Amino acid sequence: MTLVPPHIARLVPYRPGMPVSEFERQSNIKHAIKLASNESPRGPSPKVIEAIRSEAAQLNRYPDGSTYLLRQDLAKHHEIQPTEIAVGNGSNELIDLLCRTFCAPDEDHVVFGTPSFLCYELSCRSSNLPFTAVPLRDFLSWDVGALMAAVTPQTKLLFVANPNNPTGAYVARADLETMLRETPSHVMIVVDEAYVEFPSAEDYASALTLRDLRERLIVLRTFSKAYGLAGLRVGYAVGPSSIIAFLDRTRAPFNVNTLAQVAARAALTDQEHVQEYVAMNCVERARLRDALTALGARIAPSQANFLLVRLDQRGPEAYQRLLSQGVITRQMPPPIDDWLRVSVGLPEENSRFLRAVEMLQQEGER
Amino acid sequence: MTLVPPHIARLVPYRPGMPVSEFERQSNIKHAIKLASNESPRGPSPKVIEAIRSEAAQLNRYPDGSTYLLRQDLAKHHEIQPTEIAVGNGSNELIDLLCRTFCAPDEDHVVFGTPSFLCYELSCRSSNLPFTAVPLRDFLSWDVGALMAAVTPQTKLLFVANPNNPTGAYVARADLETMLRETPSHVMIVVDEAYVEFPSAEDYASALTLRDLRERLIVLRTFSKAYGLAGLRVGYAVGPSSIIAFLDRTRAPFNVNTLAQVAARAALTDQEHVQEYVAMNCVERARLRDALTALGARIAPSQANFLLVRLDQRGPEAYQRLLSQGVITRQMPPPIDDWLRVSVGLPEENSRFLRAVEMLQQEGER
Repeated sequence: MTLVPPHIARLVPYRPGMPVSEFERQSNIKHAIKLASNESPRGPSPKVIEAIRSEAAQLNRYPDGSTYLLRQDLAKHHEIQPTEIAVGNGSNELIDLLCRTFCAPDEDHVVFGTPSFLCYELSCRSSNLPFTAVPLRDFLSWDVGALMAAVTPQTKLLFVANPNNPTGAYVARADLETMLRETPSHVMIVVDEAYVEFPSAEDYASALTLRDLRERLIVLRTFSKAYGLAGLRVGYAVGPSSIIAFLDRTRAPFNVNTLAQVAARAALTDQEHVQEYVAMNCVERARLRDALTALGARIAPSQANFLLVRLDQRGPEAYQRLLSQGVITRQMPPPIDDWLRVSVGLPEENSRFLRAVEMLQQEGER
Repeated sequence: MTLVPPHIARLVPYRPGMPVSEFERQSNIKHAIKLASNESPRGPSPKVIEAIRSEAAQLNRYPDGSTYLLRQDLAKHHEIQPTEIAVGNGSNELIDLLCRTFCAPDEDHVVFGTPSFLCYELSCRSSNLPFTAVPLRDFLSWDVGALMAAVTPQTKLLFVANPNNPTGAYVARADLETMLRETPSHVMIVVDEAYVEFPSAEDYASALTLRDLRERLIVLRTFSKAYGLAGLRVGYAVGPSSIIAFLDRTRAPFNVNTLAQVAARAALTDQEHVQEYVAMNCVERARLRDALTALGARIAPSQANFLLVRLDQRGPEAYQRLLSQGVITRQMPPPIDDWLRVSVGLPEENSRFLRAVEMLQQEGER
């Protein structure tokens, strides 16, 4: 008997951005900076640190399996009901759970964009779900019509990241409204708003403000980005109670650990900390865009906390050259493998990245 | 189109033991004690608390997705290779991953005992896997022959909890050896050793000492019990590298959060803390057993950190009466619904439980 079913044998594991510690283990370079994983470059709120420290002695007890208090706080924050919220071990887990809960293997079909967040495809593959990956326009900006045209009578889930990772593109409010209104009602639309705090475009709208337009709508949020809690893995899904209830049947009983719950609650109380980071990101994103353009790089327009950048050298070469300067960026898969995704860091990190790019661009053309 | 596939519609969520905070929310009783979830009644090691406190400021960064340092430490601890270890968000997640990684829905078959840890059945149901739940002898002690007899040519996984939850029964070394040797080689035997630290029986053996007997053998361990880290969700699987590697393809990229990794590493360094708890548990388990027997209760012989107890009143009544005294125990599903599972607590908690039982037993027979 073979060890694993064929759809598992075909899986390729996700490759995360390299942690600074691992890079320093593998090279002789110290003081590297990581602009590879769209993390907040600032630490979490002091309120988070305080909450974690005061909870550490109670860790012999299981977490609250129903994330009761966190869902209460989130419900208040969004002015919705706690039963409209499911909390996951990062929104990653929720993406996987959505596939496993709402789709029958080999039967139901999933639609998402490409390039977009890789986990949609990984979850489909590991659940053995047929899918259509719809190319973005020039692989950079959303084509809502093409997404909708990919829907079939078998389509159960449609994932749209807004803003998108790794391109930074957003779906404008009018297009989002059209999609929510006109996509056939049997499709569950999942709007992944991991980067919802960062857009400055005036026609950007969260799908949370458009829930009236559609029954089968799930909005994903995370504490990993603007809230600066990537290390703790807390994401949540918002949707109709009748839909959310099914996620409680398929998730593990204690999927979100105690310190993650406590930290997320504390982070919610410090909106000022979030706003400071978002404001800094907005200023630095514009500075990076302008400086990179002046250096002859091509930039995809981004509404997130990262930029997709194309330098003169080919992607893999540029990545390695930046790495040798102690700047960790993120390589992209084909067909955008000549682009690098660069997180917006602290001002001094961004300046260091720009100096490294300046050296590269002077070395000459591809 | 129906919202979920039929196998999901049939799922019933796991009901965890009630947290003290939730009980106190629902009742007017303060200072309740929880003997419901087989947690360590002592806090985690001071080294764990220190490690968490010193890591809290770096939580804006993603966890090490490969749990590199933790696997290094575990490999040293067990004298095995890091590639023989996969770390999960509690061993719960690993049970689910084993089902999803090694079994094809509707095709491969799973064997486990009943009553045993409920998550084996939950994972089979949510993955739509056919299974056989093999009754324990009198529903209390392992019947290895019956487990082996339930294996078919389609059986891919066989879960055996040793010691078992909720009965506390163990598989003696000779029986375990027979099972590992004689079960057909296509079956992956998963020995769930969540309670491995607690047995005092001389013929108890961890399957980690018997890995030579079988290729398809996975051993599950956890930091939730003897290490006192239930709140942080860290479990791990040990097996041949070629098998373990597949779990890396199906798990989420960052399934174990940063503080969980850091805490588990610190906990490993404080074996004295573990041994103190195990010694206390052994003494108190014997004291509870003797005192409960003297009070006319029936006890299943336990090698774990809990006892399965049958009082004069029926299970649901006894549970409610104890609850009204502020003692939270765990109700059991049929056919053992007249038994309660009671975790061995601190000496003063156990004495309070015994006083409550004494009152109940005096109230009269069922």
